Amino acid sequence: VNVLQLPKHVGIVGLGLIGGSLARDLLSRGVEVTGLDRDTSQIGNLAGSGPGQMRLADSLAAVTVAPVVIVAVPVGATIAVLAELAPHVTAGHVVLDVGSTKRVVVERAEALGIGTRFVGCHPLAGHHTSGWAASRSGLFDGAPVFICPGNATAPDAVAAACGLWTALGGCVERLAPDAHDAHMAEISHLPHMVSVALALTLAESGQSHDALGPGGCDVTRLAGSSAEVWGDIVAQNRARIAGALARFEHRVRHLRNAVERDDDAGVRALLDEARSWHSS
Amino acid sequence: VNVLQLPKHVGIVGLGLIGGSLARDLLSRGVEVTGLDRDTSQIGNLAGSGPGQMRLADSLAAVTVAPVVIVAVPVGATIAVLAELAPHVTAGHVVLDVGSTKRVVVERAEALGIGTRFVGCHPLAGHHTSGWAASRSGLFDGAPVFICPGNATAPDAVAAACGLWTALGGCVERLAPDAHDAHMAEISHLPHMVSVALALTLAESGQSHDALGPGGCDVTRLAGSSAEVWGDIVAQNRARIAGALARFEHRVRHLRNAVERDDDAGVRALLDEARSWHSS
Repeated sequence: VNVLQLPKHVGIVGLGLIGGSLARDLLSRGVEVTGLDRDTSQIGNLAGSGPGQMRLADSLAAVTVAPVVIVAVPVGATIAVLAELAPHVTAGHVVLDVGSTKRVVVERAEALGIGTRFVGCHPLAGHHTSGWAASRSGLFDGAPVFICPGNATAPDAVAAACGLWTALGGCVERLAPDAHDAHMAEISHLPHMVSVALALTLAESGQSHDALGPGGCDVTRLAGSSAEVWGDIVAQNRARIAGALARFEHRVRHLRNAVERDDDAGVRALLDEARSWHSS
Repeated sequence: VNVLQLPKHVGIVGLGLIGGSLARDLLSRGVEVTGLDRDTSQIGNLAGSGPGQMRLADSLAAVTVAPVVIVAVPVGATIAVLAELAPHVTAGHVVLDVGSTKRVVVERAEALGIGTRFVGCHPLAGHHTSGWAASRSGLFDGAPVFICPGNATAPDAVAAACGLWTALGGCVERLAPDAHDAHMAEISHLPHMVSVALALTLAESGQSHDALGPGGCDVTRLAGSSAEVWGDIVAQNRARIAGALARFEHRVRHLRNAVERDDDAGVRALLDEARSWHSS
């Protein structure tokens, strides 16, 4: 870990799972952190003004005292936060986000005139738990982190973002915002919606979550995620998620047809294909 | 744990995840174990003839030297094993299985004339790994165990089965074979098929398993299970699994329609409903 890649002072808007974990990691590396959240009552002894403690801001403007500002709120709220931050963003600032969709957020930053200083980021470190209580140090260690600058983003801002995530152990991968959203629709948003649809099916059948064995718990785990975070993600990646769900429906129907047709060899071939993919 | 509920000697056919874990738990409680498997090369120093070691049998008949015989092979093979065991089963024997379907197996035991001595059992302790290497002591501690006697099963055989699983830490629940299969179609077989269908969708899109974050890994974990074990389960619970998949397809379509229609409130309500179910 090259600590030299870290800025001296970072502002964090939203101290949930991602923002809280960022605060922990940065504080433990000697970085000064100024944080803002709608509810800071849970933060306890990490908040304060001494070394290794997080200063709490009382406004978005106050967070821009730091040269690097990370917006770590649900992607719908990110739009509103960027609008309020924009008047305070100078050529000396770098602004990052951490959300699971990138196209809409990057377009919005450009429309607000802060496109040169904004770098869309997405650490693949989400979890079905949320909030400060779910945050932990080391969350980004070994995690893929997508860096999705817009066409206007300045190279020094991209370099600052890459340096920060790398210093926290992330494996940085650069991807255009739209390509990122297409990729996430498949590997993250689709699994999420599948988990939700299974939870809804079991709820409808009157099965309780307690009845599940370890396997069923795994498949339905994501259904326990924040509806606020995921409602926003769906709203910003609608067409791609709907397309992925349609392809998934086609595979479910294909599998059900083999089951119904009494086609043991066909079912076995599909189970084998799934297993090969899983272990490849 | 009431060790008095355990028989002195247990025969186990199939030393995979379930059979191997049974062997470990029984040996560690001082029960004599005679095991049989198509491949015993991995068993190592648990095999032998000393105290705490498992004797290896070379035929199904040789396993019936024990008064309690547990058949722990894929549910398709269980049918064949029961047919071969039947001539050796006396009124002094109790025969159990451990598979994820119960109706076909219990009917088969009755047709073979061993219905009075056979108790269909199903510990909800499966995993996507399999084989002796995946077995471990304590697997059944706290696990639900369904006990599904047929109409012909003798009460002393049911009591012996309940005593054995209880002594290993299992939480015994009695259920008729058909009711068991209907319940499993929902809470276990459906989640399995959903995980498989997602794996097939991602494979078709050219996504590798490596690309997934922790959430996607959870939802696709069951797709890594043994195709042999699950092909047999599908063959024995076909109509119920197809029905559950049809209900699931309906929920996926409903969710996709809300996503496509730009219906933010509708999507949010479904996410909320799934989350409430998960945390209830």
